[in-house]
Amino acid sequence: MTKFVLAPDSFKESMTARVACQSMAEGIRKIYPGAEIIQIPMADGGEGTLDCLMNSQDDQKIHEQVMGPLPNTLVSSHYGLIEQGKTAIIEMALVNGLELLPIEKRNPLVTSTYGTGQLIKYALDKGVEKIIICIGGSATNDGGAGMAQALGYRLLDKHGNEIPFGGGNLNLLKSIDCENSHPRLREVEIVVASDVTNPLTGLNGASNVFGRQKGATEEMVVELDSNLHHFAKVIARDLKINIEYMQGSGAAGGLGAGLLAFTNAKIISGFQIVSEQNELEEHISQADYIFTGEGGIDSQTAFGKVPSGVAKIAKKYNKPVIAFAGYVGEDLEVLYQEGITAIFGILTKAESLENALLKGKENLRIASGNVSRLIKINEKY
Amino acid sequence: MTKFVLAPDSFKESMTARVACQSMAEGIRKIYPGAEIIQIPMADGGEGTLDCLMNSQDDQKIHEQVMGPLPNTLVSSHYGLIEQGKTAIIEMALVNGLELLPIEKRNPLVTSTYGTGQLIKYALDKGVEKIIICIGGSATNDGGAGMAQALGYRLLDKHGNEIPFGGGNLNLLKSIDCENSHPRLREVEIVVASDVTNPLTGLNGASNVFGRQKGATEEMVVELDSNLHHFAKVIARDLKINIEYMQGSGAAGGLGAGLLAFTNAKIISGFQIVSEQNELEEHISQADYIFTGEGGIDSQTAFGKVPSGVAKIAKKYNKPVIAFAGYVGEDLEVLYQEGITAIFGILTKAESLENALLKGKENLRIASGNVSRLIKINEKY
Repeated sequence: MTKFVLAPDSFKESMTARVACQSMAEGIRKIYPGAEIIQIPMADGGEGTLDCLMNSQDDQKIHEQVMGPLPNTLVSSHYGLIEQGKTAIIEMALVNGLELLPIEKRNPLVTSTYGTGQLIKYALDKGVEKIIICIGGSATNDGGAGMAQALGYRLLDKHGNEIPFGGGNLNLLKSIDCENSHPRLREVEIVVASDVTNPLTGLNGASNVFGRQKGATEEMVVELDSNLHHFAKVIARDLKINIEYMQGSGAAGGLGAGLLAFTNAKIISGFQIVSEQNELEEHISQADYIFTGEGGIDSQTAFGKVPSGVAKIAKKYNKPVIAFAGYVGEDLEVLYQEGITAIFGILTKAESLENALLKGKENLRIASGNVSRLIKINEKY
Repeated sequence: MTKFVLAPDSFKESMTARVACQSMAEGIRKIYPGAEIIQIPMADGGEGTLDCLMNSQDDQKIHEQVMGPLPNTLVSSHYGLIEQGKTAIIEMALVNGLELLPIEKRNPLVTSTYGTGQLIKYALDKGVEKIIICIGGSATNDGGAGMAQALGYRLLDKHGNEIPFGGGNLNLLKSIDCENSHPRLREVEIVVASDVTNPLTGLNGASNVFGRQKGATEEMVVELDSNLHHFAKVIARDLKINIEYMQGSGAAGGLGAGLLAFTNAKIISGFQIVSEQNELEEHISQADYIFTGEGGIDSQTAFGKVPSGVAKIAKKYNKPVIAFAGYVGEDLEVLYQEGITAIFGILTKAESLENALLKGKENLRIASGNVSRLIKINEKY
């Protein structure tokens, strides 16, 4: 029996990874009605990762009202509970994500990771043994200060009062009081899904590299960078850990640093977490064909994106990987070298991006069907 | 050694069939450097057919100044000489084609097939034994009257004078004088490439079905149809042949009828002529993979278009056919049933038709390369 493993990323603005799997499977089943088809919706740690990690019938979403990116606003968010409630999954973008704010409200001086910290607290209260935190797409630049406050750390100014939320107020921090931090925080395993390797501060730091897309002006970038530097110095003194130049500390406006400082977190690539949780490698090792894909594929895809990660695993087992995309760029050679066998554009006509996005599911089904027809040549001729 | 046969139609407004072959071959050669690649640019009898029939180094184009679609205009045209000068190929579109006239000058009351007749005459004078006439895309509706006049037939009015050119003057015809018709006309084999099966007159006739696209108003259509009916009656009386309802007599504004009446012509599908001349079937029977394609492929393609014809031959020999197109329509099932193994869109991004047409050659090369990579799985895994 022919065995297919479907491991696409989402096709951004067109379909989720789960829908992409379904679409591929429909295309295949018409040609291989009896095939074994393993659907593994993938993600790289960003948007949609939580959904990709919730695959069992017993998994549940726990809904909570928490603080949004802006202080004094609430958002309806949720985290996932998998593995019989032993592991929680938190997707920062669903709490403090940039997409939750209209452009005119984006201001990294005031946005806070407090809501993300609240979800961590709720998960700890629930008794989980492990928390996976996906930290792509943040609206914040507070070094994880808000997150720490939600977990009971007291960030005090020179008068002994809590400093206000936001990266713009970190300069007020004089000392950190750990006494009331959540009792279970140091007992659980915390895994941070992130592909960002930037340090907390400096030219390659959180503020300089990602601040502008969160709404920072040039002056704000300087202020935010200086504040994070100050934050790191207080952490080093009070928590005895120097996170300023740790790899990944600059992820999500410095939430990476905060997690490294205030919890036992280790940072792992998002792709690796999703693939491990879903036993991607084991499935690939037993597959005849692997289908992957994402909205756009080009030479940049070789750097940490899903099709590239899938290809690298498949190459170990000498398995063919067929990639699909709406946009196929130039210089695909590096992708072939990584282990992608062939890449197919799924568009069926010249039309606007808007229309093409609407037809993504249908087009992917057709392309998957035609690829299936082609690989079936082996058996037919 | 893997053997590929490339038999695409032109990708209209993007590339000729010959360029499509080159593009496919480039894509294949990167993956199968040692493959035997047979390039057979195809056509269905319409535009580009002449070029597809000229494949030998010895073939030559004979340039002639002849009358264009409008009387008293000249066009620089040419016919092809192949098989050591034994066979001539005439493409009507290059002499009396609709594309040669701007829309405001299209008038089937006056356009004439005289120029096409001139090329036939020149080929006869050259001593050819066979003439292939491709009659798609005509600007005329004269029943081939002008063609007959160029070949020495005298079309006389009641005063014994030649009637003027154009479908609007056929009502003046009183008799046909064959005495001075070209002496070699009945000695040579004449093959007409056409997929049109309409009769000369009536609701399915030349004027009603094709007249409007040549510039005829509703009144003109009635007049042209009536004139062709009269023309057929005179032919029946003077030439002893009733062509009015013969299959294909309505092709090219009735040039089909004229060729059937004034020459020994037999009408054959354009695809069949091109495939026979290029020994397509023999090549396909020895191929491992056949690539075909055209600008757009949909369920209409099943009716007489190149990919469909290629597929039917391949099916006889149980060979896989991979089709490429810029536009891929819905309802492809009928194409699969005809023998097409898989169909791939070649677009690499959502963009305007104009831009997509410009990138046709590049996109076809990329798609051909990826298909080659995929079919090579057989050997690699």
